[in-house]
Amino acid sequence: MGSGSALPTKNNFHASQVFELRGRRYMIDCGEGAQIKLNQYKVNLSRLDNIFISHLHSDHCIGLMGLISTLAMLGRKTDLNIYAYKDLKEIISPMLKYFSDDDSFNVVFHDINPNQKAVIYEDKGLKVSTIPLKHRVPTCGFLFEEQQGERHLIKSMIEAFDIPIKDLKAIKQGADSVDKEGFIVPNERLTTPADPIRKYAYISDTLYTEKIINQIAEADILFHESTFVDDDRQRAKETLHTTALQAAQIARKANVKQLILGHFSARYRDKKPFLKEAKSIFENTILAEDGLQLEF
Amino acid sequence: MGSGSALPTKNNFHASQVFELRGRRYMIDCGEGAQIKLNQYKVNLSRLDNIFISHLHSDHCIGLMGLISTLAMLGRKTDLNIYAYKDLKEIISPMLKYFSDDDSFNVVFHDINPNQKAVIYEDKGLKVSTIPLKHRVPTCGFLFEEQQGERHLIKSMIEAFDIPIKDLKAIKQGADSVDKEGFIVPNERLTTPADPIRKYAYISDTLYTEKIINQIAEADILFHESTFVDDDRQRAKETLHTTALQAAQIARKANVKQLILGHFSARYRDKKPFLKEAKSIFENTILAEDGLQLEF
Repeated sequence: MGSGSALPTKNNFHASQVFELRGRRYMIDCGEGAQIKLNQYKVNLSRLDNIFISHLHSDHCIGLMGLISTLAMLGRKTDLNIYAYKDLKEIISPMLKYFSDDDSFNVVFHDINPNQKAVIYEDKGLKVSTIPLKHRVPTCGFLFEEQQGERHLIKSMIEAFDIPIKDLKAIKQGADSVDKEGFIVPNERLTTPADPIRKYAYISDTLYTEKIINQIAEADILFHESTFVDDDRQRAKETLHTTALQAAQIARKANVKQLILGHFSARYRDKKPFLKEAKSIFENTILAEDGLQLEF
Repeated sequence: MGSGSALPTKNNFHASQVFELRGRRYMIDCGEGAQIKLNQYKVNLSRLDNIFISHLHSDHCIGLMGLISTLAMLGRKTDLNIYAYKDLKEIISPMLKYFSDDDSFNVVFHDINPNQKAVIYEDKGLKVSTIPLKHRVPTCGFLFEEQQGERHLIKSMIEAFDIPIKDLKAIKQGADSVDKEGFIVPNERLTTPADPIRKYAYISDTLYTEKIINQIAEADILFHESTFVDDDRQRAKETLHTTALQAAQIARKANVKQLILGHFSARYRDKKPFLKEAKSIFENTILAEDGLQLEF
């Protein structure tokens, strides 16, 4: 929804993304105007039930009020879950209470500790973990990991060994087949491995830090903030942000498949230098832009 | 900045306008994304010191937080005055305190009573009054009136009567000339009338009401909300809004020079019917659109 940073512009709104898996939508950060972009990009709001806020700087969360107002106006009834540092509830509640009708839906705040690696959300398809970062306020990134799927049955082998249907569920989960006589067929002969799980890592505002590398290793896509280009590395350090070159270093060390740069400072009209310096280290890099949609 | 209503769209952001007189800028309402539009339309923020909020529905005020954050980031030091119903301070302060640096500027809240006609702001060039309206929460419009200017000296007469320079200030303000011998020259022989004062009336969310007519009479421009077209008059009544036809009736009865319709419901993609029905009653009507700029 937004690829900009603190000062939003026409082309780069405040930070906000929507991650979708099997029809469920998960929002990551919610800067000003996120709801306008959701409407513009025709994102279906019906199964958007969980919002993850990386930190409480205004460019990452002040769109919540507008989004919540709009969801209420559209007649939403189901809970909306917001995962954020504890203070969010305190600062947004007065407005929330004032603007909400009594009969609208509940906003449920889930406190997260951004300084600690932890699974903060789980459903059948997905697991979300915090990735501690180094910024001026408590901040974390998020790792979106598919839940491990089941192994695939080899139909011909299942038939050849005459495996009863009631055993198939356990076999798909990795069990060997054992018949009444104690005859064992190892799982490896009956199944092929489950699909590899897909991972998306979202690295919000942070000073360059290699502490995240283990957690984001092998991710299919790494979104990494790059507020500055490397010529402004000193400014990045002072404000606890990262340069495009540094983000590419992280991508290479973590051996991710693809890097997306974003959270660009409004000072740069031309974004090409971000891409150029990142690609010098990590070739499979693209630039975020408002409205960018990727499938993997 | 925004010509839409509760549900903002790509083309019609939430309500927000900027009025400019002699280099000073005054903001009227501040819906979500107002700061993005200010940037997009290159509105100079340096002399934007006063913001008038018509009522505390989210689409008229939730852009304040983003705007204030941005002004702080741009290094603003001078006070920002916000004129609004008293509750605004209460609901926005927690966020304001949380996001603001200690060394940023002061936001000064001025409580207004939307149910009462009153001059709420005055400077050398301008006077702003509240216009009580009928909506679901305490709501007012605003009348922007130039201060009465000075009369124009007739240079040839000033010379002919040899009027001393020290008397000119009083004469421009309407005084007669009286010399030491008590000889009187009436002001009308020395001056021509001051320029007529210009008036802009902003009518925010309201049920059709003729009570405003006296106050907005003869305005150069009347902005009047028209959330609905007249086919949806019942819906307008239920939600305490106005139709385009009704807004045109007000414009005609108040004998204003020009009518601008705005605050369109997101349900209408095509805005032409608004214009058509208004023009059937009041010819000099135009439709507001984001980015519209008028000089008068």
